Amino acid sequence: MKVSVYQGPGAAGDVAANVATIASAAERAAGDDARLLIVPEMFLSGYNIGPAAIAERAEASDGAAASAVAEIAARHGLAILYGYPERAGDAVYNAAQLIARDGTRLANYRKTHLFSDIDHNAFSPGDDNAVLAGLDGWRVGILICYDVEFPENVRRLALAGADFVAVPTALMPPYDFVATHLVPARAFENGVFVAYANRCGGEGDLDYLGRSCIVGPHGRDLARAPAAGEALITAELERALLDEWRGVNTYLADREPALYAALARD
Amino acid sequence: MKVSVYQGPGAAGDVAANVATIASAAERAAGDDARLLIVPEMFLSGYNIGPAAIAERAEASDGAAASAVAEIAARHGLAILYGYPERAGDAVYNAAQLIARDGTRLANYRKTHLFSDIDHNAFSPGDDNAVLAGLDGWRVGILICYDVEFPENVRRLALAGADFVAVPTALMPPYDFVATHLVPARAFENGVFVAYANRCGGEGDLDYLGRSCIVGPHGRDLARAPAAGEALITAELERALLDEWRGVNTYLADREPALYAALARD
Repeated sequence: MKVSVYQGPGAAGDVAANVATIASAAERAAGDDARLLIVPEMFLSGYNIGPAAIAERAEASDGAAASAVAEIAARHGLAILYGYPERAGDAVYNAAQLIARDGTRLANYRKTHLFSDIDHNAFSPGDDNAVLAGLDGWRVGILICYDVEFPENVRRLALAGADFVAVPTALMPPYDFVATHLVPARAFENGVFVAYANRCGGEGDLDYLGRSCIVGPHGRDLARAPAAGEALITAELERALLDEWRGVNTYLADREPALYAALARD
Repeated sequence: MKVSVYQGPGAAGDVAANVATIASAAERAAGDDARLLIVPEMFLSGYNIGPAAIAERAEASDGAAASAVAEIAARHGLAILYGYPERAGDAVYNAAQLIARDGTRLANYRKTHLFSDIDHNAFSPGDDNAVLAGLDGWRVGILICYDVEFPENVRRLALAGADFVAVPTALMPPYDFVATHLVPARAFENGVFVAYANRCGGEGDLDYLGRSCIVGPHGRDLARAPAAGEALITAELERALLDEWRGVNTYLADREPALYAALARD
């Protein structure tokens, strides 16, 4: 399965402009024969725009922007995973929705591990840590930004059967190690592919650090965007590479869960 | 606290020669003002020498070789962590013992995650995954080789209060990613220092890949040995760097253990 990751700054607060950016990225990804496009965290609305502006732009998972993205997906025959603010009753979640290539809504994930004031002031935490969807025979797990930095979260998806973990993100300095080392480590230690779709450029007082990537179960980059500037990167996820490295690294089979009780203890 | 890591090929099966190597490494480490020396996995006996040769050289944690290492430690006022085959009743463990700088035995750890035939044919697994010792006010956790590749194990030590994880190892191709990325990831994601003391050169049909390291909680190398050749690397573990990066990365406080039940389930 060929996967594309879009990296860009987005237009802070301007949902229509961001939908248009998704449309043009989708056209390019489809031109590269990708079957899935991933765009960054909170891409639809902007991220560092303040809790009130986020709440104003929050919508249900079947809202107007979701319909617009679904139309783009169906037009290009391309699945799309996009970050957005989800409204559900009184709660607003930092969410990511996966739309299938026929435009149906396939999965919706709410960020479980909130990061700093920017998340805590705007969002409720999600409570389901293992959202998986089937795509072209691949089991796709979804996480958002800070979630992937916790080894527990990718492990949980791998134990649930994920082959591939897709991560919309918004990573800023001084966390470059996350993009260059921690994300590849998650792929290696779990025998999965990981795609990490970051923002770049400035948004309010934040500068994002780019370096979006698609990494293999060997921990190596299949594709890597630069630190600065809009980019669309594409890579083929090969089942043979997955099988090969699951033979090299037998971590899931060699775990000793009886020793890990402290990890699940409050 | 200054820490030294010795990297070398060892003398397969020759305990007296390996004790002599520890003595000369200890003299150099003490000359660098180190307070702790770490030598590789199964350094005392050799590792890839077959189960029978290992069993012959196995001794109790207070055996003759332990006394010889204790005498070296006391002579140089230097704590020493060394890998050896431990006999306890009918069982043989892949163990690492920490001797204090006055020559007393401080902690003994038995590898819990056995690797491939080389371990499974020779050793019983240990059942205590959180061996910690105090050294100059630092909380030192011990793991051996394959153990550190599982994020669960370093996490468990960090949750138990470790500041520093010391890892005798014997890493061979194609696992170079472990030395260059996974070990730094463990330091970063847990807010601890990690020292990784590998073998180099050949032993039977195995070639070890060196690249021993001491890494900080920022994930960066404080010291790194080359892939080939004997080396003694030394670095200062600074409490200020630990405090700084525990402020940057608040992973331990931000964990959501209620979501991790699957990790401890058989």
